[in-house]
Amino acid sequence: MDRVPVLKIGDTLLVSIQVDMEDQTALQLQDDLAERIVATGCHGVIIDITALDIVDSFVGRTLSSIAAISKVLDADTVVVGMRPAVAITLVELGLSLQGIRTALNVERGMELLARGRGDGLPLPFDSDEDELTATP
Amino acid sequence: MDRVPVLKIGDTLLVSIQVDMEDQTALQLQDDLAERIVATGCHGVIIDITALDIVDSFVGRTLSSIAAISKVLDADTVVVGMRPAVAITLVELGLSLQGIRTALNVERGMELLARGRGDGLPLPFDSDEDELTATP
Repeated sequence: MDRVPVLKIGDTLLVSIQVDMEDQTALQLQDDLAERIVATGCHGVIIDITALDIVDSFVGRTLSSIAAISKVLDADTVVVGMRPAVAITLVELGLSLQGIRTALNVERGMELLARGRGDGLPLPFDSDEDELTATP
Repeated sequence: MDRVPVLKIGDTLLVSIQVDMEDQTALQLQDDLAERIVATGCHGVIIDITALDIVDSFVGRTLSSIAAISKVLDADTVVVGMRPAVAITLVELGLSLQGIRTALNVERGMELLARGRGDGLPLPFDSDEDELTATP
């Protein structure tokens, strides 16, 4: 069984997805991540998808699901390392990574997380509500 | 073709090995890592092997080779996340990870690298020569 390692770096948990996401792997990752967030008290999750050639609807749902679980456990999620071709395919397929913020690489993802925590303000693109109620 | 992503975090390059190392993957990783060390000027390489159930002689040689290449490019290598069972098997097989330092997890690996750079002293277990010439 493939198992994706969860690495702790400071206040952030880092996950680098390199294997094909199947049902069991995805569920295991969700479990592992939720447990590690609770165990470590980390406030940020960075998911690196540099190795992924394609993000289909299943992977998209898995990422959204991880982000939602982390959110409930008081951790923000940033997806980093998306290839240009993956971004194009995502849009062409009409998939939206709901509730997920993205950054170009791990370092920028960490900056994004630190900024979000540091000033106590909600992160940009944090929720749909903000955008909808911004100019009533 | 499986390709192992190389992630830059501060002055360190992080590699999480999750796929079975075959000849092509190993060579590709060596190339990628060498290029990234030169491109970024990083002084540390952390290789996470949490996901590996076994470290055979080929993987051991690959790790040693990466450490040697990094050394020439002025970067220190630390292998982190080795499972207890892997450590036991390594010793039983009589394999020594020559020229490789290890740490329990990524954070301790980063501390080890920072310590090595910070005080300007050679790292413990840095080379065989030191041990041999310590008490002539």
